[in-house]
Order: sequence, then structure tokens, then C-alpha cells
Amino acid sequence: MAEYKAPLRDMRFLLNEVFDAPAEWARLPGLSEHIDPETADAILEEAGKVTANVTAPLSREGDEQGCKWENGNVTSPDGFKEAYQTLMEGGWMGLGGDPEFGGMGMPKTLVGLWEEMLQGSNMGFGLAPMLSAGASLAINAHASQELKEKYLPNLYAGVWSGSMDLTEPHAGTDLGIIRTKAVPDSNDSYLISGTKIFISWGEHDMAENIIHLVLAKLPDAPAGPKGISLFLVPKFMVNEDGSLGERNAMACGSIEKKMGIKGSATCVMNFDGARGWLVGEPNKGLNAMFTMMNYERLGVGIQGIGAAEASFQNALEYAKERLQSRAPTGKQHPEKAADPLLVHPDVRRMLLTMKGYIEGGRAFSTYVGLWLDRAKYVQESGEKTTAEAMVALLTPVAKAFLTDRGFESCVIGQQVFGGHGYVREWGQEQLVRDARITQIYEGANGIQALDLMGRKVVANNGKFYEIFASEIAGFIEQNSSDEALRPYLEPLAAALERLSDVTEIVIDRSAQNPNEIGAASVEYLDLFGYTALAYMWARIVKVASQSGGAADSFLSGKLKTADFYFSRLLPRTVSLAESVRSGSDAMMALTADEF
Amino acid sequence: MAEYKAPLRDMRFLLNEVFDAPAEWARLPGLSEHIDPETADAILEEAGKVTANVTAPLSREGDEQGCKWENGNVTSPDGFKEAYQTLMEGGWMGLGGDPEFGGMGMPKTLVGLWEEMLQGSNMGFGLAPMLSAGASLAINAHASQELKEKYLPNLYAGVWSGSMDLTEPHAGTDLGIIRTKAVPDSNDSYLISGTKIFISWGEHDMAENIIHLVLAKLPDAPAGPKGISLFLVPKFMVNEDGSLGERNAMACGSIEKKMGIKGSATCVMNFDGARGWLVGEPNKGLNAMFTMMNYERLGVGIQGIGAAEASFQNALEYAKERLQSRAPTGKQHPEKAADPLLVHPDVRRMLLTMKGYIEGGRAFSTYVGLWLDRAKYVQESGEKTTAEAMVALLTPVAKAFLTDRGFESCVIGQQVFGGHGYVREWGQEQLVRDARITQIYEGANGIQALDLMGRKVVANNGKFYEIFASEIAGFIEQNSSDEALRPYLEPLAAALERLSDVTEIVIDRSAQNPNEIGAASVEYLDLFGYTALAYMWARIVKVASQSGGAADSFLSGKLKTADFYFSRLLPRTVSLAESVRSGSDAMMALTADEF
Repeated sequence: MAEYKAPLRDMRFLLNEVFDAPAEWARLPGLSEHIDPETADAILEEAGKVTANVTAPLSREGDEQGCKWENGNVTSPDGFKEAYQTLMEGGWMGLGGDPEFGGMGMPKTLVGLWEEMLQGSNMGFGLAPMLSAGASLAINAHASQELKEKYLPNLYAGVWSGSMDLTEPHAGTDLGIIRTKAVPDSNDSYLISGTKIFISWGEHDMAENIIHLVLAKLPDAPAGPKGISLFLVPKFMVNEDGSLGERNAMACGSIEKKMGIKGSATCVMNFDGARGWLVGEPNKGLNAMFTMMNYERLGVGIQGIGAAEASFQNALEYAKERLQSRAPTGKQHPEKAADPLLVHPDVRRMLLTMKGYIEGGRAFSTYVGLWLDRAKYVQESGEKTTAEAMVALLTPVAKAFLTDRGFESCVIGQQVFGGHGYVREWGQEQLVRDARITQIYEGANGIQALDLMGRKVVANNGKFYEIFASEIAGFIEQNSSDEALRPYLEPLAAALERLSDVTEIVIDRSAQNPNEIGAASVEYLDLFGYTALAYMWARIVKVASQSGGAADSFLSGKLKTADFYFSRLLPRTVSLAESVRSGSDAMMALTADEF
Repeated sequence: MAEYKAPLRDMRFLLNEVFDAPAEWARLPGLSEHIDPETADAILEEAGKVTANVTAPLSREGDEQGCKWENGNVTSPDGFKEAYQTLMEGGWMGLGGDPEFGGMGMPKTLVGLWEEMLQGSNMGFGLAPMLSAGASLAINAHASQELKEKYLPNLYAGVWSGSMDLTEPHAGTDLGIIRTKAVPDSNDSYLISGTKIFISWGEHDMAENIIHLVLAKLPDAPAGPKGISLFLVPKFMVNEDGSLGERNAMACGSIEKKMGIKGSATCVMNFDGARGWLVGEPNKGLNAMFTMMNYERLGVGIQGIGAAEASFQNALEYAKERLQSRAPTGKQHPEKAADPLLVHPDVRRMLLTMKGYIEGGRAFSTYVGLWLDRAKYVQESGEKTTAEAMVALLTPVAKAFLTDRGFESCVIGQQVFGGHGYVREWGQEQLVRDARITQIYEGANGIQALDLMGRKVVANNGKFYEIFASEIAGFIEQNSSDEALRPYLEPLAAALERLSDVTEIVIDRSAQNPNEIGAASVEYLDLFGYTALAYMWARIVKVASQSGGAADSFLSGKLKTADFYFSRLLPRTVSLAESVRSGSDAMMALTADEF
């Protein structure tokens, strides 16, 4: 198994050259005090070290050992506790946290790159800090000042970890039908009872306390999604002086046997009158969740890229070293028994498909991170509204498209190894199993597509979409005289036109028939994603060609990968558009018996 | 986990109505003596029972327990030995075997359907009979009469099992560089030394003896693929009277930890001067392997369908029962907390994608089976040549396309379950892990694509392809006045034209640049496969519409699934053709450093 090496050069290239993130940070109040290019650079460098040396080496053992459950206690795999401690001491747990409560206040553009390294090096482990960050975000956005002061500093420090408790056995996508109850008790607290499932790191031995954010229903709550409230429920009660008190009335009933991310504990959590505190307003729990979801969903998209990057590094190394058969044009290394895999066109197709997705995807997640930073820190209301619209529009694309392509990339990276990819030794099959969850959790990708098509496109009559389309159209126009860029602008414009065309079609049709939204959604999101990545690749080409690509294999590689992306991958948009245009009739025609 | 139910109605519909296989069997000497419609029907019925009752219930436990290796011995999972015995007693092991040596002589059209049930119900277990059938085929085609008489009856009876020993640690796709040696010894036997890996069921406790077919090099063998010979190497020596003698000098060194098919043992086999006998001519070992490969490769394609069918059955049942959210057009079951998943357009898209692949794929594998039967049994040389050409052309498509779509279907079938698909309970994640191997072994799918594009299309200047294309063109012409079929004939003709167009382009270009073959191959095979399945769906529509579809949900479901296939899946050919047309430049341009 190749060692994980964080793709620092590409990350810096995107951050500093393609997007000039430092200029954005400098102009945004709330960010400019905390971050400058040197700090960012030092953080990236250190992140590369800690993921290569601390988390990556534990990934395989974590998968093989898994977590152990006994009498309600969960033991993490060997080394996880120490690694958690190392990350804690390095200050990584609060990287994006609010400085008012001890966080480091770093922008999402930078935190996203840290997340890619962490998740790419060890996804099972990486879920723990990810959940803590998500829970902290929701607490910071919606909880009372008292709760924030009591819980955030230890969450940001990593002394305590966080957990999100949403799903119930009968209620996954449809949270409106949850049954967990919250009964008001003394001291503004509530007693929570019910069973939650699929709770990542809901119980473990790495942190002193675990802070659960639990969705539950108040006694008088209206039915459906408008009757859900959010509660903070600690594993151990926290005394006034901040010390830990008695154990709360909750326990981990079991952990799941699952396909991958086996290093993490996926818990059944039983709440039996556990004491909790309301976060945000009564019955507005789903709103409180949505605040963090844009961040989390981008984080899951980034997990897809991370896993794909790890798989690519392994596959590329293998393709350079493994000798098998001769190049179609004749022996390249006559002195050896065979040529390396890399001479074969189809092996190159596989590697370039991965590279096109990963580097284009990394650009896209950084770009979305930039919009998240703007939405959070910009003061001017017009720009803020625009940023919020872009975040709303692009988040489901980032989550679903990057994880679908991430999984596809891991499968390709496994395929490069042939039979050796199917056995454990090289780690490629673990990456496939791990990456698979990213398409499912935090809103299954089909749900992301419905969110995009229904809430983000159709519901506002394409208003958000227009902002995005105008930006690309503007880019095309501004660069129409750039010789190096021109070959890419025409197919980019064609893809954009295709996307705009089906956007209009679906908006029109769905006014008559609501099924048109769900019938179009997944292929629409794909079409959107391929177009968005084409825009990213065009922006990369613009910078790489100006930096004198030929002399530097990093830059010339970018230009050639862009060629591959535009000629081999972007054409998929043609078929996707045609599928969307065919509408809902064919899929709605069948009775249940006809399936 | 839903119970596996063999799709008998669909199998009979294909066999009897779509392809009228009984008419073919009746006209072919060598087949007509052994098979008639009643026998075929009874075999299907019984196969449905044995797979539902014997093999399916062991699948999950086989995955969880796996095989155990200790001191060279392999213990199969609980129940496997008894199931093997049951199949043996039922005569299933020699279903397609040569009657001269105790086989049942059944046609591939029928055996293929048995294989689908067996593999769909339990792939890890099913590999054992599959390997035995493959080894028997090679022995029957190439070994001496003496070896055949000595080994085939017990192989067909299942008393002994078979194994194929090809791969070595450094030699997978490139068998020309194997290092295993065969040194001539007394009595026409040879002493074999070397290490083979990835040997499915190379060692186990289910049969009394294991007959290995081993590729090795004679001392004077020329280098490369033309210096490989095939040897029969039994685990236990067989005495003149047929009783078992001493153990041969070979041992299983270990078994692999792998992603799936964990119920099967994947062995490292060490040969240390093991006694073996030449099968076929010296240095013609690869030829001997190719005889069986068309059968085996179709068998692997069928594994893909089998796994997908199992996943579909589970997903459909879940989609009908699981209540989650409301239909876009309003509550369908106001009395329940939510509507079943099946009301949602995107869930239907997932199920119909699976159904389109599986039923179209089953038709295609049956169609290829028909050509295999013709190639084997037809006497007239012109027809035989045609049949052999069709088998050669279609086999790599069946292997790669059906396993790629099979894996895709299993991933979709897992997605229908959301988080529940990722945990072990419902069996969906196992099917994904099991199905994944079918894309890798028996010639990785990229190699199948090279075989199709290079050897089967370019090498004969499209001659084989013309036979296939003419058949479809003939079908379109003959049915142009069929009202029910007409809507499907136009897109079928368009897809065929697209395929013929890129066929010509690649043949032309590859004359100048051999890289064009490998650059086009995978997308070409996909384009071929989607077109072939469209032809299958058109043939299904022809029969279903004539049988008065409306009154029978099985038949009306066929017509509606065909609509879905043509409107949502077949459009993928447009993009695939465009990708192929873009040629090899983009993927060959990069130096190793630029990746």
C-alpha cells in the first residue's frame, strides 16, 4: 500500500493561484484577523505531515480491527486514542471553530483542504473530528450563550467530541415521522426518550465526554417536519465548574457491522429519559440542522475526493511499477520482461478519469468553500444574498457529484490493480468500501438531487441558477481572446447551454406535473456537476497556461488533463441532457405489479 | 434479507417465446437426443428450488465465516459441504457435461439459466461448480482419451472438483511471463514447480479430490505466450482402479483476505515437483485455455446478472414496504405515516435501471448461449463459421458489459436502502462486494474490451461485426410494419448506425496508430453493449406486444421497461460514441511525470 501524501502543491495552486483565496480572506472582516497566506501555508504543511504520519498509518488496522462494543462501551481500534490525542494537541479539532469560544476561526477554503487530507488518510477516524465540527457549528449558530460557553471550548479543544443523532429505525430521509420524545423538566431542561440509529461515533473512548445533538418531538409538537426540535444531550452531565458529573440516561445499545468505515463506531443510541437542553427554538430543529448541513455536506463531498486521491496515488504508483504486457506501439523497455502498465492507453484512460475528477473536484470544493466564506463573513447585503444563493445551489452538487465521482474513482483505482485490487493487501478495496458511504449518508445522493432540482432550481424559478450561469458566461466572454483558453471555451459554452436548456424544460414541465422534478433530478445533478467541473478546468487552464506550463510538468499535466476532461468526460453531458428531456412518463407508467 | 426466488417466468419467456430455443435444440444433432421442452422445464423448476432452499440460505453465513486455512487445509463455511453434496446428488455438477463421460449434455442456453440461479443465490459457493465445469470443458476438448476417461466421470459427478491455475504473483493479464516449470518425467508425466495465486477453490474440504489445470513452461519452451503448456495436476494421485493414491507434491500456502466472495477460498498454490500430465499439445496451453474461456466468460457475465437479480428482488420488496415521505403528487396512502418508496420517481428510476439491465442482460446472455450451442453442435460448415464468429465477437461484450451493469445494478440496489444498504443486515452490501470481482477476474473488463476492439473487430476488418450488424438491420427491416415495435426501431437503428460509424472510424485510425484500439476499447464495448441490449429489448417487445400485453402485468411490465430503456438508458450511446471519436491523443500526451 502506497503511503498517503497530501497533494499540497495542487492545494496551494488552487488556493493561491486559481482562486486567489488570500485576497478574499484579506477583504473579509472576521477572517482577515485570523488568517494570512503564511499562516495558511504553515497549516497546510503541518496538515500534510500529521495526516501522513499519524492518521494514514492507522487506516488499514482500523478497518481490520474495527471498533468493539461491550456492555455499552465502545473501544476504538488500536492507536486511534493516541492519534486523537495528537490531533487535539495540535489544535486541529477547532480549526474552523469560532474564536470567541476558543476556535481558530480558519476559513472553509482552508479547512476544506485539511478535511480532504484527514478523510483521505483515514475516513473511519476522520469522522470523529468531522462530527465534532458539525455539532459545534449547530451549537454556535443556535444555542444560548450559556450552552455555547459551557460546551464549545471543550468541543473546539477536542477534550469532548460531538455527535449528530437524527435517524431512527423507521425514519431516515423522512425525519418528519421520528418518534423520539422530549418532555419538559425542571431547570429549562428536557427528558429525552427514544432510539436513534446510524450514529457515527455516538459512543467511544477517545474523548472525555460526548455531546449529542438529538432531534426529538415536544409533547405538543405538530405532526411532520415542522414539529421537530433539537436538543443538546451530553453523555456525562457537566457541573457548574465545568467538571463532569453523573452519567446521563443514555447508552449505546450496539454498533453496526457494515461495509466500510469500519474504524468508526456506528451506534444505536438508546435515550431513556436522558437530560437535554433545547438548541434554538421549539419545533425549529430542522432549521437548526440545515445551518450546519451546508458545511457538512461539502465536507462529505470532500471525503469523496479524499478517498479518490488516496486511490489515485496508489494506482499511479502501481501503474508505473507493475510490468505487464507490451505497449501497443512496441516494446518501451526491451530490457525488462514487460512494460509498465502506464504505457497502455486504457490504463491511462483510467488514471486520467480519476485525475480529471479529483483535481476538478478539488477545485470545485474550494470554489464552494469560497462561497461559504463569503456567505458567512460578507457584510454587504446584496453580496451576502448572492453568496447564500450560490451556497444553497452548489452544496447538493458538491455533496452528490463529488461522492459519486469519488466512488467511481475508487472503483477505477481498484481496477488498475486487477486481482490485486480485490484483496486487502493494497488497500484499494478498503477505499471502495469506505467511499461508498459518502453517497449514502448526510442525505443520500438521490435526496441531494431532489434538493437541487426542487428547492434550489424549480422553487425559485431558476433564479439561483441564473447567478451561476451568468458567472460562467461572463468568464467565457472575458476570456474569448485568450488563445490558450479558446479550445475549452466552446465546449464549456455548449455544456452550459445544454444545462440551461434542460433547466428551463424542467421548470416548465414541473408546473404541470410535480413528478418531473424527481424524474429529472439525478441526471440533472450529474449534468450540472460535469458542467461545473468543466468551468473549474477552464479556470485551471487559464492560470496554468499563463504560468508557462511547458517547463513544469505539474502545469503541463494540468493542461493535458484538461484536454482529456473536455474530450472524454464532458461529452457525457449530451446523453444526460437527452435522458432528462425524456421526462417522467416512462418511469411513472408502471403499476407496482409491473416491476 | 429477502429470500432469493429464481425468476423462472422470465427465464421461460426468454427460452420458449423470445428465442424459441426448443426449436434450435430439436434441429441440432448431439442436443436433440438429450433435451426437450419438458425436460428443460423440469430442470428449471428444480433449479429454482435447490437454489432457493439450499444455496441461498448459506450465502450470508458463508460471507461472515469465510473459509479457514490451517496447515495447508481449507475448511469451507458451515453448511457448504452438505450443500455441495446435495447438488452432487441432484446431478447438477455435470449438467452441461459430455454424456460420453457421464455428463448430462444440456445446452448452454439452459445451463446458463441454472448458472444464473446458482450464482445469484450464492456466488462464493457457486464458484466451485463453475470451476469444475470449466476444467472439465478444457479436459474434454484437449486431453487424451485416457485422461478423459480417468478424470471426467468423477468431475461430472462432483466427487472431484476442478480448479484453474493460471495467475502468478508477477503475471496476471500477461501470462507470457509465467515462471512455473514443467520437467518431463517417466510415464509421460511431468514434474511441476512454481507458485500460483488467486486460485479459486484450489483447496477445500467439499470434494474427495481436486483436479488442477496448471499453466507451466517446458524446459525448451519459447519465450512469451507461445511457450505455455497446460497440465492436469491432481491433488491426490489416481490409481489404475480409480481409487485415490498418495498426495501430490503441492499445497495451499495461504488464502486471501478479500473484498467479497468470502465464502470461497482464494488460494496460493505451491507446486513443488507435483506430478502432472500434459493436456493438449506442448506450448499450446493458451489455446487450450481459450476453448473454455468463451464458456467461462459468459458464465462470469451471468454472475453479474445473478447478483443484480438478487439485489433487485431485495430492493423491489423494500421499495414496496418501506414507508418514507409522500408522493410528489400528494399522499397515496393517507392512512399510513408515509407512502412507500415506490411512489417516488427517482426510486422508480433506480429500479427500472436495474430491471432494464437485468432482463435485457438475461436475454443477451441467453442469445449468446444460443450461439455457443450452434457453434458446438451445428454440422454445416458455413453456419458453424458464422456461429463461431458470433461467439468470438459477443463473448467479451457479455463478460464485461453484463458485469459492469451487474455491479452498477448492485450499487443501485444498495442505494435504494439508504443507510440500511450499508450495513450487513439486508445483504445488499455483500452483493456489491461479491459482484465487484466479476469485473476483475477471468480477464479484467478492460482486457475484454481490448479483445473485442482489437482481435474481434479491428483484426478482421469488422467482418464479425458485420454479421451482427446485419442481423439487427434485418430485424429492423422485417418488422418495419409492426405498429407496436415501430417506436423502438428508430432509436435502435440510430444506435446501430452510431456503433457502425465508430467501428469504421477505429478500424481506419488504428491502421496508422495502434494506440487507437486501447483508447477506444472500453467506451466502444459499452456502446456495443447498450446497442445489443436495445436489440434484445426490441425482440422482447415484439413477443410481449403480440401476446396481448395489457392483460398480464408481466408482459405489460416488459413493454414499459422497454420504454424506460429506450428513453433513459440507450441515450448513453450518444456520449459514448462522442468519447470514442475523440481518439487517443488526449490520453497518450502525458509523460509519466505529468500524471
